Amino acid sequence: MAKDFSTREENYSKWYNDIVQRAGLAEASAVRGCMVIKPYGYAIWEKMQAALDKMFKDTGHSNAYFPLFIPKSFFSREADHVKGFAKECAVVTHYRLKNDPDGKGIVVDEDAKLEEELVIRPTSETIIWDTYRQWVQSYRDLPILVNQWANVVRWEMRTRMFLRTAEFLWQEGHTAHETKEEAIGETYKILNVYSDFAEKFMAIPVLKGSKSENERFAGAVETLCIEALMQDGKALQAGTSHFLGQNFAKAFDVKFTSREGKLEHVWATSWGVSTRLVGALIMAHSDDHGLVLPPKLAPIQSVIIPIYRNDEQYAIVCQRAKEISDNLEKEGIIVKLDDRDTHKPGWKFNEYEFKGVPVRLAIGPRDVENGTVEVVRRDTLGKEVVSIDNIGNYVTSLLSDIQDNLYKRALSFRESNTFVADTWEEFTSILDDKGGFILAHWDGTAETEQKIKEETKATIRCIPFDDNKEQGRCVYSGKPSERRVVFARAY
Amino acid sequence: MAKDFSTREENYSKWYNDIVQRAGLAEASAVRGCMVIKPYGYAIWEKMQAALDKMFKDTGHSNAYFPLFIPKSFFSREADHVKGFAKECAVVTHYRLKNDPDGKGIVVDEDAKLEEELVIRPTSETIIWDTYRQWVQSYRDLPILVNQWANVVRWEMRTRMFLRTAEFLWQEGHTAHETKEEAIGETYKILNVYSDFAEKFMAIPVLKGSKSENERFAGAVETLCIEALMQDGKALQAGTSHFLGQNFAKAFDVKFTSREGKLEHVWATSWGVSTRLVGALIMAHSDDHGLVLPPKLAPIQSVIIPIYRNDEQYAIVCQRAKEISDNLEKEGIIVKLDDRDTHKPGWKFNEYEFKGVPVRLAIGPRDVENGTVEVVRRDTLGKEVVSIDNIGNYVTSLLSDIQDNLYKRALSFRESNTFVADTWEEFTSILDDKGGFILAHWDGTAETEQKIKEETKATIRCIPFDDNKEQGRCVYSGKPSERRVVFARAY
Repeated sequence: MAKDFSTREENYSKWYNDIVQRAGLAEASAVRGCMVIKPYGYAIWEKMQAALDKMFKDTGHSNAYFPLFIPKSFFSREADHVKGFAKECAVVTHYRLKNDPDGKGIVVDEDAKLEEELVIRPTSETIIWDTYRQWVQSYRDLPILVNQWANVVRWEMRTRMFLRTAEFLWQEGHTAHETKEEAIGETYKILNVYSDFAEKFMAIPVLKGSKSENERFAGAVETLCIEALMQDGKALQAGTSHFLGQNFAKAFDVKFTSREGKLEHVWATSWGVSTRLVGALIMAHSDDHGLVLPPKLAPIQSVIIPIYRNDEQYAIVCQRAKEISDNLEKEGIIVKLDDRDTHKPGWKFNEYEFKGVPVRLAIGPRDVENGTVEVVRRDTLGKEVVSIDNIGNYVTSLLSDIQDNLYKRALSFRESNTFVADTWEEFTSILDDKGGFILAHWDGTAETEQKIKEETKATIRCIPFDDNKEQGRCVYSGKPSERRVVFARAY
Repeated sequence: MAKDFSTREENYSKWYNDIVQRAGLAEASAVRGCMVIKPYGYAIWEKMQAALDKMFKDTGHSNAYFPLFIPKSFFSREADHVKGFAKECAVVTHYRLKNDPDGKGIVVDEDAKLEEELVIRPTSETIIWDTYRQWVQSYRDLPILVNQWANVVRWEMRTRMFLRTAEFLWQEGHTAHETKEEAIGETYKILNVYSDFAEKFMAIPVLKGSKSENERFAGAVETLCIEALMQDGKALQAGTSHFLGQNFAKAFDVKFTSREGKLEHVWATSWGVSTRLVGALIMAHSDDHGLVLPPKLAPIQSVIIPIYRNDEQYAIVCQRAKEISDNLEKEGIIVKLDDRDTHKPGWKFNEYEFKGVPVRLAIGPRDVENGTVEVVRRDTLGKEVVSIDNIGNYVTSLLSDIQDNLYKRALSFRESNTFVADTWEEFTSILDDKGGFILAHWDGTAETEQKIKEETKATIRCIPFDDNKEQGRCVYSGKPSERRVVFARAY
């Protein structure tokens, strides 16, 4: 690859940024902490959206849209929520600009000050629960199963493309239920949607579990999550699903008449994934040759590149390339025939390799004669020359292989980077040597969790669902513990 | 219909609001001028998005995403643009809230004042052209054909559901080209996409033309538009496509090396349609029985309602209803079988009629015996009892008929509400009696246009593309004119 591109070994952080930039996924904007998502990066997000949106609809959810702005006072309604979200926000205070009286551009018109400031939504529980009050009278109005695709803003001080930006795109589901059981069931159902999506589309294995109190969503009774492991041994929270109990219903006075004729508060959930998943996708699979994309989320699944030396060859080769392209399209493969004569084949090879296109086909005059095509798969960079008979089936099957292989590779990486630590020395040396997931006993106190975080930067990623109770002693305090939890340093 | 629902005749404005509210399309939110788009309304917008997005992609465009925030100073760069857009904006001045020292909720943290205020995008030309500067070096980097689906904010004083809200959803295309001709070609190409969409999906005939200078987009060299006629005789601008010349390229210094090796400014277009189209859709087709939707944009194309008196009948009827539902789904029809036993058939009939579902099927015990089903089409409310043999084909064909009929009805309405005025008296009496489109001569001056607007509230909707030049005299000033233009009062 190009010399000025970092390897993971040399500089993991620069490697990531180089991929984001040079594969044309995103770039910094003129606004601090906000990125521009470029067409190729956005196309990946669109594929994620399409797959998730279908899964949400298949499980009975509908989309809706709620205001970008939230009246400041709404944040004070739910006591925990205000602590978590009302701090680093973008605040709208005025609604007009005017010409500078001194003739120097435009200035804020101080006469146009809002009576109550508006906060750009960092998450929409408050405005949505204020709305649901009007929607719910009786149990017949429940459940409400609504999702929103939207932009949100959290004024982060340290930002990083896709992983942490001031403005980001996400979906946020907000559901309302008759009973506690039904709401908890929804929380788990969505967590399974997220883990299915991560594993089947993103080809990333995830741990499922619940968060400790420290790491819980502000306003939730319980937060469930999926956690993925990146190639540098750091964890990445890839999705959360919250059981909100009756907290928001009480804060916004959302009651319904139950089947028994009683007036009760509604039970709630909320859940979300964001453009941070694009960051996870990049970091999970890519290599020192650039981006690697799982076929199910690749904007281009197969690229065809003609090889030729003169106009005559160009014509013959392009004709065959077009036939192959039509064949692949018939099989439902997203194919790009790059027949531009402004760029050389070698340049194109590098370009599509760097952009992570799963399958590259190259065809030259000899291939035309022999009825063959050269096939390179991006995951292993393995090369084969195959017959063009049944090329559609061949590539379909290869794409499926690549999808599976990426998952297996990521799973194997996670397995070999999941460790058991029984002593504090083991715990810290694993963290410093390799990172990864560490299964360790914890005494269950927020205090210990906080101290571990301060001393090592490792946090409890989740308390896994598997029911393997095991007596032990807290890796930090030595106090008794009934189960291991998962620690890691995280994005 | 329900008694408290206004007819068009009684109160057109209330009729519109009643439909929006009672069909569950949208409602006012706690934030002034911002609406909540409810699931049924949002489902219509999603169908619009899907159709348009495919048309954009089929014409070579990709989606991307640019920041919500625009640095205030960007607006001053393009002289005309600042006049048009830098006034009624939402302005972010701070990035943090804190607990009120007096213990009364939360307040803006005055220490967290932004050095430069950020404006919530009212449209994104400025931030996008600031970005394009990095994307373009050579003619090889052109054209850039990018679209964005986004929310925008314009602090409107008088708002109306879908038609004019402070925050709205839209798409904005922003393209960059080597030559003036190519950019103009793009402007027309997109206008044709918009008019095709309006006519083929929304079933609304539109006039195509260019705007007068007064009505032009702030920063454009030329604005093309499509104009539709609503049932109250007012026009509605349904989409605009702007040729921006080199204005934004010059303001943001976007240059490229041409094929001739010269450094030149890039040529630009921008174009957009918004959730206002949902308002147009409602007003174009609906009647005194509620919403009427063209099948191609209906979230539910056909509803099936079982009729029964007891549990035994319920079982038999629902079984047949399910068979019919499966049949329709096989034909690709979006069908809803409403077999809820909590609501009576009469209630359901009203509900789906009001929600504009194009085809209603009702099936009772006698229908099961006879192998029939009752079919009601929403556009004419015509009723038929038909055989269930081939019901899939029957409904498919009926949906197609309804789509065509709605278009023809809207076209016929427009034709009978398009008038020619040759004198000022004719002009004003048409406006006061009937409204509609008025074809009249205009002397071509902004001054006359402004006076006509002040005296009658009518504006020039467009200067139509058809090349029917005709000598005449301005309906207002009596000065010579070479062609008629289209006047109307407008939303």
